Amino acid sequence: MESTSAATVATPRRTRGARAQRREGGSNLGVPYIVRNIPTYDILGEESLQRIERTADRILAEVGIEFRDDPAVLDHWKRAGAKVDGARVTFEPGMLKEIVRSAPSQFTQHARNPARSVEIGGRNVVFSPAYGSPFVMDLDKGRRYGTIEDFRNLVKLAQSSPWLHHSGGTICEPVDVPVNKRHLDMVYSHIKYSDRAFMGSITAEERAEDSIEMARIVFGADFVDRNCVILGNVNVNSPLVWDGTMTKSLRAYARANQAAVIVPFILGGAMGPVTNAGAIAQSYAETLAGCALTQLERKGAPVIFGNFLSSMSLRSGSPTFGTPEPAIGSMVVGQLARRLGLPLRCAGNFSNSKRPDAQAMQEGVMSMLSAVHCGANFILHSAGFVDGLLAMSYEKFVMDTDFCGALHSYLAGVVVDDNALAMDAFLEVGPGSHFLGCDHTMRNYQTAFWDSALSDNEPFEKWVEQGETDMAARANRSWKKTLDEYEAPPLDVAIDEALVDYVARRKNSMPDAWY
Amino acid sequence: MESTSAATVATPRRTRGARAQRREGGSNLGVPYIVRNIPTYDILGEESLQRIERTADRILAEVGIEFRDDPAVLDHWKRAGAKVDGARVTFEPGMLKEIVRSAPSQFTQHARNPARSVEIGGRNVVFSPAYGSPFVMDLDKGRRYGTIEDFRNLVKLAQSSPWLHHSGGTICEPVDVPVNKRHLDMVYSHIKYSDRAFMGSITAEERAEDSIEMARIVFGADFVDRNCVILGNVNVNSPLVWDGTMTKSLRAYARANQAAVIVPFILGGAMGPVTNAGAIAQSYAETLAGCALTQLERKGAPVIFGNFLSSMSLRSGSPTFGTPEPAIGSMVVGQLARRLGLPLRCAGNFSNSKRPDAQAMQEGVMSMLSAVHCGANFILHSAGFVDGLLAMSYEKFVMDTDFCGALHSYLAGVVVDDNALAMDAFLEVGPGSHFLGCDHTMRNYQTAFWDSALSDNEPFEKWVEQGETDMAARANRSWKKTLDEYEAPPLDVAIDEALVDYVARRKNSMPDAWY
Repeated sequence: MESTSAATVATPRRTRGARAQRREGGSNLGVPYIVRNIPTYDILGEESLQRIERTADRILAEVGIEFRDDPAVLDHWKRAGAKVDGARVTFEPGMLKEIVRSAPSQFTQHARNPARSVEIGGRNVVFSPAYGSPFVMDLDKGRRYGTIEDFRNLVKLAQSSPWLHHSGGTICEPVDVPVNKRHLDMVYSHIKYSDRAFMGSITAEERAEDSIEMARIVFGADFVDRNCVILGNVNVNSPLVWDGTMTKSLRAYARANQAAVIVPFILGGAMGPVTNAGAIAQSYAETLAGCALTQLERKGAPVIFGNFLSSMSLRSGSPTFGTPEPAIGSMVVGQLARRLGLPLRCAGNFSNSKRPDAQAMQEGVMSMLSAVHCGANFILHSAGFVDGLLAMSYEKFVMDTDFCGALHSYLAGVVVDDNALAMDAFLEVGPGSHFLGCDHTMRNYQTAFWDSALSDNEPFEKWVEQGETDMAARANRSWKKTLDEYEAPPLDVAIDEALVDYVARRKNSMPDAWY
Repeated sequence: MESTSAATVATPRRTRGARAQRREGGSNLGVPYIVRNIPTYDILGEESLQRIERTADRILAEVGIEFRDDPAVLDHWKRAGAKVDGARVTFEPGMLKEIVRSAPSQFTQHARNPARSVEIGGRNVVFSPAYGSPFVMDLDKGRRYGTIEDFRNLVKLAQSSPWLHHSGGTICEPVDVPVNKRHLDMVYSHIKYSDRAFMGSITAEERAEDSIEMARIVFGADFVDRNCVILGNVNVNSPLVWDGTMTKSLRAYARANQAAVIVPFILGGAMGPVTNAGAIAQSYAETLAGCALTQLERKGAPVIFGNFLSSMSLRSGSPTFGTPEPAIGSMVVGQLARRLGLPLRCAGNFSNSKRPDAQAMQEGVMSMLSAVHCGANFILHSAGFVDGLLAMSYEKFVMDTDFCGALHSYLAGVVVDDNALAMDAFLEVGPGSHFLGCDHTMRNYQTAFWDSALSDNEPFEKWVEQGETDMAARANRSWKKTLDEYEAPPLDVAIDEALVDYVARRKNSMPDAWY
């Protein structure tokens, strides 16, 4: 009997201005970042959380972490009272938690357009594009290595979406630019083609320094010393190893009072235990050590507690993404991060699909919802992630940003006030009638429902008339139209010239390197 | 730097028996129904919940509900102390809540195979196929009206999935069978081709009676009088109208001690207010009245508190499905149902897409996760729903059942015990090594991760070799293979003959009717 449900009904006509108005309007629509109006989804009780924390304490005390090729880190740990034996460092229970207490629980990352600065921590949620794919793909040209042109395109697509809040970092690898010079073009592209907050390089200490120096050109050196304007995403070499390249970049960001995002990547069964609780305990220990290191480098520097859980196909041995175990595990990571009082990066719109298809969105939505449910504050990989992060898909990018839009409405929760309860409408309409023209509907319809730009909601016959498209085909049209219509945000000419000059000087100072 | 994440790693080889073993094994895999090991996601506080309940009380007292074309219902209400004015009935606050206290908070629906009986209520979750589509579609033949052959095929597909728990009801409309005889063929198909619990007709009182009578042939009349063996899904004619066809069917089920599922379908802005809180208050009032009516017909009869929230496209006036507002609204409905102590049906795998594409799974997963998060006990529409329920898709059906499998792992939550915490593995492996062959991995890998049968997790090059399929193409192969391999569960010959005889007699007793 529910088949009547799909009948199309008339609705009050909507002016063209309504959509824009709605984006500016109430709840979470059209905002620089989201302030969540729903609680986090906490799935574990106190005793279980303590058992995970105690296991992390034991890992840190009995197994320890190796810090390789960065003697300054070992000096930090010695001074802080950890036990250092060669590269292996062990920690008394409670020591690292005490050290990270100096890190802020919330901080502002400034954007060059102040209206787009983001708050990271607390009840705030920031969506940022996927990060790190060597390949890009689209429906026209298939998969190929990313180029700086792709990079710019993707920054433009991100900038054009009202549903992202951040320009991200290595939105794809610009493989046509020498490895040792990519970061200059990437950071410049973020500043030039976006006015949102962004991320810098971490692949070498001097590249981190370059990234921060370019931020100083935009914001001024004094401002940068006092405020966060750039993030650097540093990875643990799990299990239980921090490489010098990463700790040197981590320290460069912290030293400059900029925020490192500390992220272990654990593929359960390979870089960590095959069981969720153990992988969570391990990543907690690894992240906590990285967060503490930022505070030893510069007390009070902002830092983000990061996490990236994954799983493995037992048939093929391949990593899997967007699967249920990491999704539910994220809720626990969120609880643990909040107990530390640190801003959280966790999960994202992950998928292993090679196409912008049903698999891509099934995995992506499960994973992305876990990110918002677990209380992640900075959600890297919010858009474009396919093929286990080996590729960035143009079509999935715009599908994902559309879904980020839906999450703005979702995170607004259910408003319960006199207007929303609509008693006046019930008294007006009564049984057996309809609410289409009633006063309450007229007052509220423009802001009532999320309206996807990519979903087809037409009757079947109209969908046939319009070419029987699937969402991927509509996404293909959408990103091309967006790029056609893109306009760069204004950038001070003197700043632009100074950046161009800095990039040219740095590029000229070294031969190309392709490794 | 996270692009290394997709490297394929070696894994212990898995025997063919492992998958079967895993299905039998721990947690929630391969079970007749799920016992959730994660809490529900409660998003509203006490004060907001009370405001919604008070609004429902006011709707019931000040506006009331019309009960049309079923005088027995008005007699029930008069005897119960409600105020009856023509067809309009109003209720004192608290009255209906008091009446539904006699309904069980949990009950068993028996399947003809006792190992497949389901528990409905409490922490239990039962997945049932989509219900009510006049059309079916597949990638080969496109969309067309459903037939009894489609109906049988879909029952067989459901029966073949280890991840559904229930055979459902009108899995598609068999449009080639006269309207007044369809229910006979549908109920017979559920019994013949599935050994799981199922649903009967509600489109006319005598069809409800036929459905229950056929259940009596299978289970015995005495057993049926004492136990629930069949469900009937009855819809409110929102806003605030109960039609006689529905209340007569509702009463037929209750009278026979069988469970009615009470479901308003509210498309916000049309059949209810455009704001979520108001639509929830209205549906709460409508459902509560239906639940109470079952108790007046037969005190103690099982009943399920149902809900179906939807939204509307403000551009086209079309209903939309799998959107954020109904998803987050479901959490509130769950909280309200638990306060009443009634088993809950809410949400499902909803989509408005016309294809088994990215839209289908983006909408479906958002909606389906809301169903499991909100604590729904009986999740109708768990598989196959496309085109706003106008069509049942063969491909989406198997995609959705695969996703139901993932939800078995998800609802198992994060186990925290000595084995899962894996301290022995950390002591064995240490920093900078891997967990692939360690004792802990060998003990746990077979049950560690959900392994989708439809997702592609191969490296890109292997995916190309294998034909560059998308998930829809793999789903197309999957349902055909499943139908090829289908074997009917054993059915007692005498029962089968009695059912065939009953169907023949009933069909012969009336001329075909096509309305």
